[in-house]
Amino acid sequence: MHVGMFESFVTGHWFSAEAKRIWSDAATLQAWLDVEAALARVQARLGLVPADAAVTIAQQADATRFDLVRLAEQIAFAQHPLVPVLRQLEALCGEPAAGCVHLGATTQNIFDTAAALQMRRSHALTAAALDEAIAQLARIAATHAATPMAGRTHGQHALPMSLGFKLAGWIDELDRDRTRLAERIGPSFPACMGGAIGSFAALGPIGREVERNLAAELGLMPAGLPMRAAFDRASDYVGALGLLAATAQKIAQELVFLQRTEIGEASEAFHLGKVGSSTMAQKRNPSTAQLLASLARLLRARVPAALEAMVRNDEGDAAATNVTDTLLPELAILGVSVAETLARLVQGLQVHPQAMRRNLGITGGLISAEAVMMRLAPRLGRHEAHRLLYEAAQRAQSEGIAFADAIRSHPDLAALQLPEDLAALLEPGAYLGESVALTRETIARVSR
Amino acid sequence: MHVGMFESFVTGHWFSAEAKRIWSDAATLQAWLDVEAALARVQARLGLVPADAAVTIAQQADATRFDLVRLAEQIAFAQHPLVPVLRQLEALCGEPAAGCVHLGATTQNIFDTAAALQMRRSHALTAAALDEAIAQLARIAATHAATPMAGRTHGQHALPMSLGFKLAGWIDELDRDRTRLAERIGPSFPACMGGAIGSFAALGPIGREVERNLAAELGLMPAGLPMRAAFDRASDYVGALGLLAATAQKIAQELVFLQRTEIGEASEAFHLGKVGSSTMAQKRNPSTAQLLASLARLLRARVPAALEAMVRNDEGDAAATNVTDTLLPELAILGVSVAETLARLVQGLQVHPQAMRRNLGITGGLISAEAVMMRLAPRLGRHEAHRLLYEAAQRAQSEGIAFADAIRSHPDLAALQLPEDLAALLEPGAYLGESVALTRETIARVSR
Amino acid sequence: MHVGMFESFVTGHWFSAEAKRIWSDAATLQAWLDVEAALARVQARLGLVPADAAVTIAQQADATRFDLVRLAEQIAFAQHPLVPVLRQLEALCGEPAAGCVHLGATTQNIFDTAAALQMRRSHALTAAALDEAIAQLARIAATHAATPMAGRTHGQHALPMSLGFKLAGWIDELDRDRTRLAERIGPSFPACMGGAIGSFAALGPIGREVERNLAAELGLMPAGLPMRAAFDRASDYVGALGLLAATAQKIAQELVFLQRTEIGEASEAFHLGKVGSSTMAQKRNPSTAQLLASLARLLRARVPAALEAMVRNDEGDAAATNVTDTLLPELAILGVSVAETLARLVQGLQVHPQAMRRNLGITGGLISAEAVMMRLAPRLGRHEAHRLLYEAAQRAQSEGIAFADAIRSHPDLAALQLPEDLAALLEPGAYLGESVALTRETIARVSR
Amino acid sequence: MHVGMFESFVTGHWFSAEAKRIWSDAATLQAWLDVEAALARVQARLGLVPADAAVTIAQQADATRFDLVRLAEQIAFAQHPLVPVLRQLEALCGEPAAGCVHLGATTQNIFDTAAALQMRRSHALTAAALDEAIAQLARIAATHAATPMAGRTHGQHALPMSLGFKLAGWIDELDRDRTRLAERIGPSFPACMGGAIGSFAALGPIGREVERNLAAELGLMPAGLPMRAAFDRASDYVGALGLLAATAQKIAQELVFLQRTEIGEASEAFHLGKVGSSTMAQKRNPSTAQLLASLARLLRARVPAALEAMVRNDEGDAAATNVTDTLLPELAILGVSVAETLARLVQGLQVHPQAMRRNLGITGGLISAEAVMMRLAPRLGRHEAHRLLYEAAQRAQSEGIAFADAIRSHPDLAALQLPEDLAALLEPGAYLGESVALTRETIARVSR
Repeated sequence: MHVGMFESFVTGHWFSAEAKRIWSDAATLQAWLDVEAALARVQARLGLVPADAAVTIAQQADATRFDLVRLAEQIAFAQHPLVPVLRQLEALCGEPAAGCVHLGATTQNIFDTAAALQMRRSHALTAAALDEAIAQLARIAATHAATPMAGRTHGQHALPMSLGFKLAGWIDELDRDRTRLAERIGPSFPACMGGAIGSFAALGPIGREVERNLAAELGLMPAGLPMRAAFDRASDYVGALGLLAATAQKIAQELVFLQRTEIGEASEAFHLGKVGSSTMAQKRNPSTAQLLASLARLLRARVPAALEAMVRNDEGDAAATNVTDTLLPELAILGVSVAETLARLVQGLQVHPQAMRRNLGITGGLISAEAVMMRLAPRLGRHEAHRLLYEAAQRAQSEGIAFADAIRSHPDLAALQLPEDLAALLEPGAYLGESVALTRETIARVSR
Repeated sequence: MHVGMFESFVTGHWFSAEAKRIWSDAATLQAWLDVEAALARVQARLGLVPADAAVTIAQQADATRFDLVRLAEQIAFAQHPLVPVLRQLEALCGEPAAGCVHLGATTQNIFDTAAALQMRRSHALTAAALDEAIAQLARIAATHAATPMAGRTHGQHALPMSLGFKLAGWIDELDRDRTRLAERIGPSFPACMGGAIGSFAALGPIGREVERNLAAELGLMPAGLPMRAAFDRASDYVGALGLLAATAQKIAQELVFLQRTEIGEASEAFHLGKVGSSTMAQKRNPSTAQLLASLARLLRARVPAALEAMVRNDEGDAAATNVTDTLLPELAILGVSVAETLARLVQGLQVHPQAMRRNLGITGGLISAEAVMMRLAPRLGRHEAHRLLYEAAQRAQSEGIAFADAIRSHPDLAALQLPEDLAALLEPGAYLGESVALTRETIARVSR
Repeated sequence: MHVGMFESFVTGHWFSAEAKRIWSDAATLQAWLDVEAALARVQARLGLVPADAAVTIAQQADATRFDLVRLAEQIAFAQHPLVPVLRQLEALCGEPAAGCVHLGATTQNIFDTAAALQMRRSHALTAAALDEAIAQLARIAATHAATPMAGRTHGQHALPMSLGFKLAGWIDELDRDRTRLAERIGPSFPACMGGAIGSFAALGPIGREVERNLAAELGLMPAGLPMRAAFDRASDYVGALGLLAATAQKIAQELVFLQRTEIGEASEAFHLGKVGSSTMAQKRNPSTAQLLASLARLLRARVPAALEAMVRNDEGDAAATNVTDTLLPELAILGVSVAETLARLVQGLQVHPQAMRRNLGITGGLISAEAVMMRLAPRLGRHEAHRLLYEAAQRAQSEGIAFADAIRSHPDLAALQLPEDLAALLEPGAYLGESVALTRETIARVSR
Repeated sequence: MHVGMFESFVTGHWFSAEAKRIWSDAATLQAWLDVEAALARVQARLGLVPADAAVTIAQQADATRFDLVRLAEQIAFAQHPLVPVLRQLEALCGEPAAGCVHLGATTQNIFDTAAALQMRRSHALTAAALDEAIAQLARIAATHAATPMAGRTHGQHALPMSLGFKLAGWIDELDRDRTRLAERIGPSFPACMGGAIGSFAALGPIGREVERNLAAELGLMPAGLPMRAAFDRASDYVGALGLLAATAQKIAQELVFLQRTEIGEASEAFHLGKVGSSTMAQKRNPSTAQLLASLARLLRARVPAALEAMVRNDEGDAAATNVTDTLLPELAILGVSVAETLARLVQGLQVHPQAMRRNLGITGGLISAEAVMMRLAPRLGRHEAHRLLYEAAQRAQSEGIAFADAIRSHPDLAALQLPEDLAALLEPGAYLGESVALTRETIARVSR
């Protein structure tokens, strides 16, 4: 029986297959066992358990030897998520190695350290997909560094700009997103081996040596002060995932807009056999962009709960760790899926410069009002130029006349020596500002 | 010194002036005093305090006699929000009436009951503004019950419909919003007089009589079981405010879209002197719609905190009541402001049927693909009709040819006896479905 | 491969098995097919399709005949969640019945109506579990209507009360929760059959008749105006689930507190074999209460996303419906699981009146300060009595002396004729207020 | 008329007075004017405006010369938040300087750069208060590095530890919070001067020089690519504030718990005149801790809205910037207030080692079960030691007997040569693990 969005026949394909493998039941169990094996190895090296025992434990720490159905039943009965696993592992090891399993550790140590391994693997997928998305956006931006299109604010044409410039903004933000994630993955998910309350009581002074060695063995940082009631480090990475999701949602919504029937400036990949509607044969929906927006929302929705679950009672609090133990895998899979869907979306992206050009012309020059103002400013002052052009521009819109005509027929403006090249000034392609230069620099910066 | 969005010189005008008056410091203090006065009156009637004392208390329960600056200092010193108020009231009353103030009550009783009075007043404003917005939308819908426009899904033209139909959807949802709020305002904000922990210990059996009488005196319902740790009733009203906010945000975003430079199907009120930009003279922004969306988000953002603050420890928990005491006024002001801004927005709304007609024609008939499918379905089956029209419609888009031509040149469709009236079938205005009837019924239903 | 919390070997047992069955892949597919079958049946009755076709469709509308793996692949390829299902159904039906499938419907109509069926089934489980939880709490409350315990506010002893009174507060709130859910389940999840944009364009005037008949056939209410961009009704039910979750979290946290090592006033069920820790042999954790709090948080965390997803563009918006199509099953399973876990928790609840009695005595009578104040109030006035007792009570705490001694040695109080029965006044069990009466009435009210 | 929590007579004292001054209307206007003055100065230096004009502008850029009431009216009429300010400034400057105001800038440039100045000032307050809180916690931790108390998990006694160790966990987390904030304040709030859509169109190539110079002038970093649709940098700082709030709420809730009547291990400052209740004379509430928790929740509640508002349409979107322009001041004030309230709370904190010692003894040695297990592990294996001690410990609890007796009377344990020093092993003070060392190291690390 399948339940839940990750494996559903309807929505399973929304999610990164590799990320799901990392967080599958089998892989999670294996991650726990990997930590137990590494712990034994490290303790053998430090003389805490016999070398033989560590070898035996490592050999038996193999998820395929475990009976997941029986484990599920025992976990439900014991109301404890790890002890039944330990019992099966001990049984597999036999005496005396069995007695050396899990020495000085508490359950949450194993869970947190294993999750750190899984988070690191997930992060690698996210990072790779982000690299790919940024590289592809940079390619399109390079091609269209100077392709003119309407810059819009508040849904209204504002100034002309280039497509490259718009993409540079996305690239710049995505680059910050990947930097933040890369900087935080290590410190956010350390190896924790402080025992029941983080005081290393069970092992004494050598406990901290065990934690440091375990961290080195697993390629993680040591927690140092492994308070189980502290979750701020993980939450900080989750926050960075939330920022990535918001960036991705913004890009997705922009692409849904650019593909709109009336806009048509971009469209996502289409293949025959892609269906838009069970009843409307003509539909070509921006379904990948909408999926991206949806995944981003599902990710963002989980951020406040992760933040709230930082608030923990005592030296350990299952009312919070239950929540974060459950949320982290979801957040990790969603993070990879957001990044991969973004990469796929931009891989298939098609841009339509003619439509951009067509839309640029819609306002009959109004989009270039600032260009005229800046030309007049040295003679009138910026404020006065704005005032007069406001009158002309609003009249053009109220009366449906061309902006150039409204300017020429404005009493105060007409009295001036108007720019001779008014038509050229009103040509949108001539007022791209630093669009091209900024595009090129951004591409260069992220391609280092 | 002004701090905070409600009274700021920049954003003060975003918020309902009347709602702000209801929740001003002076009005809040007066609401507390009104409850104390009513409590004394009711207790006099029940023989718990002398009638004279109740008269004195009622006379002195006048916020204008209080020194708010001194109160603020004393509250900060006592770290208690009401006791200094009681002391000033007692001093104003003199003996022996002073000794009859606040008998059997606890602070939260006064706060909750006063807030109930203020919420009821705020609700009246919200309800009136919603009535106005719905009535105005109904007027526009009546005029444009049959005005054709493109129905869109996923940003793509889907089917033709009428403007009235679109508005009917908003009206229907707003009508549910106002019904929910109206049904919940009473039970959500009862009079509470259970004393320190809600057990009526201070007054004994007559305490419940006091609560019932106080409720009647103030036009509220009695709490009955006035547990201070229960906030679900208030949260339920807050939830309904959240739904209203989401409806309003949806409408706002739709209007921002309809006013877009390329769409132009609607626009909000404009007057000379309304400025869109400090640098772009031409800008006519949908600033009221954007303000509405913003207010709606500010309201929605406060809903989870109100929900979270239902989770309270013990028989009373300031870590939660501090939050909800602070949030309720904000939510109430935002609720009224959302409703009033919505009413103002639709009052000034202008619709542009020619632009709707123009946009309807953009796809060269593709928007009517379903009409053709339904005509062919009796002969081919729905599935086969969909399949063939999918091929024709996708070819029309890939090759940029007219849909009618793609149909006529499709081998399987050409083999059929095509509808003779294909051109008429593809005429968008002919396929409005039940748009008109549904519009009229919706108007009639909400105008009862 | 299992991924996701619902079926994980670690956390699968957290969730209602019956609720998971309702929302499994197979059951979801069956719900879609049930709607398609009912639609054909209704359309046959109205003469829109042949009776034979409807019979054939109903026979083939059987999820066990479908190949879920192939469906998953086709859905991923078509990027459409329903069309591949329709194709398999059409193939199973054969001609001419195949051509009568899904007539006049759009995908979201099927999804929403099927989800309505699944929500109704889930609601029945939630309601039954809530009934059970309330009944059990009422039984405990009846037994302990007069069992004295400390009432606390802000973590400090406030007044004595009875255990029954505390439970009455929970019962009262849970009763409101179940009423809200029961009132909303019907209107929140109607049958929707308005076609592509809700205008009934495909079927024309008879379309609304189809919707009404379909609703009757399935035991649902008809949507009436089936705008796909409206989600407020569903969100309102979701909001009520959020309130239930917050109530449940409050109860859970209270029980975690009452079971604390130092408090010991209640404990949840324990059996040999229940394990508290992999390293601390002594642990008896309130794991069911903590699980309940965790489930409640996971539910609450999904409420804002459902609210946000009410904000939809156009006449249909997959960026929102993807989210709610995914969230509703999770919310429904969590809702049932919260209610069932609550029921299980209170079934196993043990209360310890001796510990309550012991804790009541901790403050040496301070918990009864209000009782003394109310006795002195008629002579001194409430305010003066409060002032003098404040001095005595604070001195008792600062100097660590008995409250009675502090009262007797207070100069102003000593000057008074103190209540002769001061010791009796300070006896906590004597100041339960209306605890008992309120408990009995609450039990009676919810047991109707 | 006062409306809103920041200046209310009831809650005004909750908030940092200095932070409120930074974000007052007058200070906000001054920050805008400071940016306009700096812009003119920089442009004069670059030869874009006459030096005289820049001097004049700087002289008039003085908020005290502005009429805030008139501004508020004009802003409401123009529906634009800055243009009326510019008009007053231009009028104050007179010609020709008036014409040089706001050259090449757009409103959001001024707002964002001014907010950057205000955020930096707020950050300094937050940082100072955090330093103070950490230093004070370090002082207490140093004194109590070895003071034994119960370590608890899930509300149950787990292991002994020292108070210093608990505080070290708080110190460590707060230290990370302050580091995150310090690292992000600069990049999160850059100077932005890209004009209408961030393309520097108005000023051309020198525009970027203007931005860099302006940034240097104001001590900020330049935005570089000043896309108005990018808010991730600010959201990242907001995220770090959210983490701080969650840390603070955790500490606050722990202190509320430690002060509970039954626990009594710590208490916050009390002074005569601090009132706990209007009806219960004895109350000493942890009101500062509860206030801290409340402020933290109010802050946390605003984080998702800031994240959501990263999702922006077009090159500028008031539906999002309205929200963040409003939220940032609130977040900044709340951030400072959380930090200052935390500092005040720990300044007044009193700890009660005797109560800790008393509570440690409650379980009759069960809290030291792990110590016995670790002693037996070398002989029995960890697993077997756990199993036998589980039986003994659970029996001790079920039958209410001493743990030592349960151990001695357990058949399998009795058969062993039990540790001779069982009593010493069960002495809680003997099993503090690395508590002391970790405390000292943490203090040393944060005191660098």
